[in-house]
Amino acid sequence: MSRAFNFSAGPATLPEPVLLQAQSELLEWNNAGASIVELSHRGPEFIQVAAEAERDLRALMAIPDDYAVLFLQGGATAQQALIALNFANPGQAVDYVVTGHWGKTALKQVKPYVSANVAANGEAGGFRDIPARADWNLSKDVAYVHYTANETIHGVEFRDIPDVGDVPLVADFSSSIAAEPIDVSKFGVIYAGAQKNLGPVGVSVVIVRRDLLERAGQPRADIFDYRSHVKGESMLNTPPTWNWYLAGLVFKWMLAEGGVEEFAQRNARKAGLLYDVIDNSGGYYRNEVAVAARSRMNVPFFLKDEALDKPFLKEAEAAGLISLKGHRALGGMRASIYNAMPEAGVQALASFMRDFQQRHG
Amino acid sequence: MSRAFNFSAGPATLPEPVLLQAQSELLEWNNAGASIVELSHRGPEFIQVAAEAERDLRALMAIPDDYAVLFLQGGATAQQALIALNFANPGQAVDYVVTGHWGKTALKQVKPYVSANVAANGEAGGFRDIPARADWNLSKDVAYVHYTANETIHGVEFRDIPDVGDVPLVADFSSSIAAEPIDVSKFGVIYAGAQKNLGPVGVSVVIVRRDLLERAGQPRADIFDYRSHVKGESMLNTPPTWNWYLAGLVFKWMLAEGGVEEFAQRNARKAGLLYDVIDNSGGYYRNEVAVAARSRMNVPFFLKDEALDKPFLKEAEAAGLISLKGHRALGGMRASIYNAMPEAGVQALASFMRDFQQRHG
Repeated sequence: MSRAFNFSAGPATLPEPVLLQAQSELLEWNNAGASIVELSHRGPEFIQVAAEAERDLRALMAIPDDYAVLFLQGGATAQQALIALNFANPGQAVDYVVTGHWGKTALKQVKPYVSANVAANGEAGGFRDIPARADWNLSKDVAYVHYTANETIHGVEFRDIPDVGDVPLVADFSSSIAAEPIDVSKFGVIYAGAQKNLGPVGVSVVIVRRDLLERAGQPRADIFDYRSHVKGESMLNTPPTWNWYLAGLVFKWMLAEGGVEEFAQRNARKAGLLYDVIDNSGGYYRNEVAVAARSRMNVPFFLKDEALDKPFLKEAEAAGLISLKGHRALGGMRASIYNAMPEAGVQALASFMRDFQQRHG
Repeated sequence: MSRAFNFSAGPATLPEPVLLQAQSELLEWNNAGASIVELSHRGPEFIQVAAEAERDLRALMAIPDDYAVLFLQGGATAQQALIALNFANPGQAVDYVVTGHWGKTALKQVKPYVSANVAANGEAGGFRDIPARADWNLSKDVAYVHYTANETIHGVEFRDIPDVGDVPLVADFSSSIAAEPIDVSKFGVIYAGAQKNLGPVGVSVVIVRRDLLERAGQPRADIFDYRSHVKGESMLNTPPTWNWYLAGLVFKWMLAEGGVEEFAQRNARKAGLLYDVIDNSGGYYRNEVAVAARSRMNVPFFLKDEALDKPFLKEAEAAGLISLKGHRALGGMRASIYNAMPEAGVQALASFMRDFQQRHG
């Protein structure tokens, strides 16, 4: 086939202009005599690429100067462990708000290191809603409060930044970073694996309020110390240069398209289209998430007749719509519609869904 | 310029056929409708890529079945910390043999976790030789003995596997993995950042004797637990898929070229050429490493007249020979000549060095 509309939850679709540029530069970057994959991270070429990526991400997300920006390996899961090691002092407890699979994963990573309270947990309700802020049981004197801005598997998204007072708010934004304007100053730490909403796999973004770096944290290797990474400008050891470079191309593309304000509008329209098809299908398609908590990034849905799951996936693929199979934890379908998914792709999926229902209704 | 001969120490030059294939597949992999960068790591396409990469690396290095092979993020430095966390029980000491900068880094990573003895240390001699095995002060009942097979900055390489009895031998092979046949069964753990001798940046290879995975180790997050990575087949979280894919292409290229036996011969010829030019320059060029410990991967050298360093680099670049500047810790020059550096590149550098001496002698 030629390029399809790819609804994968991550690694996920990248903007075609970004792939075309990366392709044209893969043998030689900018007259440097070598590919960016081959050039030293300490050389002038990559230093420029890295600096531009940080500058562009700062512009895109309006990141204040009192926040450091890191580009690291290890994925969001490694950051989940490092956050406890860096920001919780020995004996200091932490609060976790769990609204899906990734919140549970985050909690699991810190348990060997800290006493972790579960301040709220949506599991009893199958993670189909976000527990009301008024019902959260926040603790006193914790190092931070952690939550997951968007749950990729369960399709549950915070629409507002929760108010936790003066305690630093730490948020996993892996699947919704830069999907809309957010006030970074409300956070202590924002972290994200880039392979969902920013596109490139193999690099994570960590945005840290600088005063938190003064915390002693817990005994840890230098390579697990965010202070060292800040001092080393994310080059404490060899960074994933190509992935960082690719992220930089995505940032430039997003800025050129109109920035996060523009993507917020596109994302609202895209999600609206799919939820409309689902809600107007008379129960043929079903999304089980409370309307106010529905994700704009990941739309899980089920066919009323499970026997049609396979034909649905097969016919979708034939129509150039791929990676729609739901996560094995839930089954059914899932359409991930991050920034790089064009509106045309979502329109094609919406049409296909209506058409499939007519043919198999 | 067009593609130059790139002597960067890592990220380093890649085989041109590998880059050409990656380029041709960057928009769409194998009729999948999307780039390999965009496809789910859980999908059939990447599962195939990952399995082939492991199979090919096992064939290339003749890795026995009782060793697990992991493809991880974090670089060699993160593995240095994880090795102590996974293989040293609380209270158990470890032995380190330090023969250069990277041995020191390895030692630094484990100090927060374990009592680390320095069994041998070449620093007093400026890391210009490897301390004789007979002079090593190995401890009893340590968890493992760690050494660095090749020191990228100091250009010092072990030519034999040191005998440490029954204690598991852990080796950083970042800059010489797959450069020649080695007997993997002599090791407890071999690890390597791939961006030097295997080519692709952003992925590390860890080869672990399976019985060591039964050790309790120390309290650690699940994401820092090699057992979990083995169980999850290196996909405990989203792996750096594109980097892993690129490593796989390099493995296939190496096998097609004749495997590690062939590269051992090429590498010996390449290093021989450069050391010959240096040794026959009447002191115009100088390599300070003891002959028996000279690296076949990284050839550091100094010009007698430091004032000629800048003209040397400038003229070399004009001749299509780039990234020859030595590490800031040592100054001078350094030619990194890993597997992917063609013999023609080293011949061109040798000619240039002789010619430069004639013109500026």
